[in-house]
Amino acid sequence: MELMRALDSHRTLIERSLRHFLEAKAGELAEVNRWGRDLSERLLRFSLHGKMIRGGLVILAYEMLAGSRAGRSPYPETGERARGGSFPAPTPFWVADVAAAYELIHSSLLVHDDIIDRDRMRRWAPTLFHQYEELGEREGIAEPGHFGTSLGICAGDAGFFLAFEMLSGAGGDVSHGDRVSRIMLLWAKELTAVGLAQMEDVAFGASSRMPSEEEVLRLYRHKTARYTFSLPLATGAIAAGSDLGTASRLEELGEHLGILFQMKDDEIGLYGEEAEIGKPPGSDLKEGKKTLLTLALARLGGREYGDIVGRVRDLPGDAAVLSSIRDLAERTGALGVLERIRNPLRKRAEEIIETLDIEPSHRELLRELLRYNLDRTR
Amino acid sequence: MELMRALDSHRTLIERSLRHFLEAKAGELAEVNRWGRDLSERLLRFSLHGKMIRGGLVILAYEMLAGSRAGRSPYPETGERARGGSFPAPTPFWVADVAAAYELIHSSLLVHDDIIDRDRMRRWAPTLFHQYEELGEREGIAEPGHFGTSLGICAGDAGFFLAFEMLSGAGGDVSHGDRVSRIMLLWAKELTAVGLAQMEDVAFGASSRMPSEEEVLRLYRHKTARYTFSLPLATGAIAAGSDLGTASRLEELGEHLGILFQMKDDEIGLYGEEAEIGKPPGSDLKEGKKTLLTLALARLGGREYGDIVGRVRDLPGDAAVLSSIRDLAERTGALGVLERIRNPLRKRAEEIIETLDIEPSHRELLRELLRYNLDRTR
Repeated sequence: MELMRALDSHRTLIERSLRHFLEAKAGELAEVNRWGRDLSERLLRFSLHGKMIRGGLVILAYEMLAGSRAGRSPYPETGERARGGSFPAPTPFWVADVAAAYELIHSSLLVHDDIIDRDRMRRWAPTLFHQYEELGEREGIAEPGHFGTSLGICAGDAGFFLAFEMLSGAGGDVSHGDRVSRIMLLWAKELTAVGLAQMEDVAFGASSRMPSEEEVLRLYRHKTARYTFSLPLATGAIAAGSDLGTASRLEELGEHLGILFQMKDDEIGLYGEEAEIGKPPGSDLKEGKKTLLTLALARLGGREYGDIVGRVRDLPGDAAVLSSIRDLAERTGALGVLERIRNPLRKRAEEIIETLDIEPSHRELLRELLRYNLDRTR
Repeated sequence: MELMRALDSHRTLIERSLRHFLEAKAGELAEVNRWGRDLSERLLRFSLHGKMIRGGLVILAYEMLAGSRAGRSPYPETGERARGGSFPAPTPFWVADVAAAYELIHSSLLVHDDIIDRDRMRRWAPTLFHQYEELGEREGIAEPGHFGTSLGICAGDAGFFLAFEMLSGAGGDVSHGDRVSRIMLLWAKELTAVGLAQMEDVAFGASSRMPSEEEVLRLYRHKTARYTFSLPLATGAIAAGSDLGTASRLEELGEHLGILFQMKDDEIGLYGEEAEIGKPPGSDLKEGKKTLLTLALARLGGREYGDIVGRVRDLPGDAAVLSSIRDLAERTGALGVLERIRNPLRKRAEEIIETLDIEPSHRELLRELLRYNLDRTR
């Protein structure tokens, strides 16, 4: 797939930027104290484990718009990196740095998320706070749990500041300093909303109250859609010197793409294969997660749903229970509810994609991204 | 005191900026979800409780250098606020916003610090994570402690992003956009070191190992001195358009001032009156805090020190124990050790103050600040 090939090549650029920045910082921060080099190294390892979709979308949007009619660049691009492949606009170093800074923000948010969700493993490696917890255990600290949480909080904070330094530094060349300033303002505004969405997610998880469809959609919008799609796309557009109209249409496209992505996530959480999705299907039900799907099931399935969820909780991965919940989803029309939400989002996304002022090959990449968010199985 | 009068009037400016920004944000963030307005209000209340020394120093340095020979401002200052008093350079709105943004960073760091230190009260009010914990209790959440910690982590994160938005917005007027970019880069770099110093502080507290004098001094430098004095002073200097030399001499001055401030803090922790210092004297010993003073006491007092600390731990606020530790400090020369560290710092601070290219009245303010850090009793 052309899209995956593009994202893979962006990943290579982002990795290089991350290494370059964090390896240089490791030496500098070693001067502060013994945690400096160590943290740079842990953050680098952790960040390199990511899929880098978000950073990849920054570069994708940049490439689509730099030099195009929608991306009216008044500046000559400097520091360009020669690239093969079908992309006419080579990616300058500073854009790769912006994308890498976004990945570093993402890693830092995950460091805090893992404390909140008490996740000790992520992508087959111990999470950062759990690494510190293990360090505390090895060093005979009295309360290794609180020690790990404390260092994890500090590490996430330091990660945010490193990311903002990386972004600030990307503006070092005055020729694009004003673009970097605009990106900085955009990130700061949007990331506050991500923090608030995370609070809502914590509250949904902790409470037995069923939220409304509108509340869940709003959570999807801020926690997933704007953060994972809109913000990276708008960032790339600003980096390319696009007009505000193009940037805001990409933002809207990102919202639709992101909500569809999250809805698919909920669906494959029930219908996917464990080997593909990395967790036993049905675990959302087991954990009492409030998704659009579990909401529809609870509303339409009534007592029958409650009974099945009770059994899922006791018997993780039980095939019979899983098939009865799948059966319920079809019988009650819960899947139809999702389809009803999905249709207008898909249509609006298609409209935006077809009317953006970009090259045909780039339009095809966006179509592919939409199809992926609608049809992926993992 | 002229200094206190100056800091009080800066406080008024900072309060106005904080109110202006966070009250506007409350309306905007109410659109995200129910946590938006609520968080803006909690952060505002929490920030207004602060002493605002740091923000005050930003404005102080700006006033000292704006329009002076050392602050060669190529830009006409806009949006000025009429001010009474003895200061020739009125403070523009955007500088007050920069100072307020720094206070918001400080509040957000404290939100996380309070989780780490498990402090449920600060300045006679519940800390933010504890407010959320109480909310969780009222709403019958199963684990209110973890609920409070989780929301506190998110709230601190959102606070950082709000502060960066406020700083970015302060650069809205292009005439000083490049100064704001320089401040952004400076903050990001320095705040990473603050995060690392906080990790070291956690590790010192959790371990029974006695750190070296050099290690403690390095902690003071990054956790207190650079953060509380150097960074605000350098920020004001950059805002005033100072040359790099002046900004870096203020940074150095800040380091000396800050270490002296922290050393005094340790001293009044043992010699102060509870009503003045807000905690029972001797509580540093009780909590096993690693200060330059406890370090000297442990080294020079040997077994006698260990015995007294053991008794302090059992009998908080016991007058006899307190007087024997004070006696030990004098007999063993532990106070002399502090004097030996203090002298060159004080001399170097005096030198910098006397040679800065500023108005006599401003020089007198800095002398007053130095005297305060040397002689304060609370």
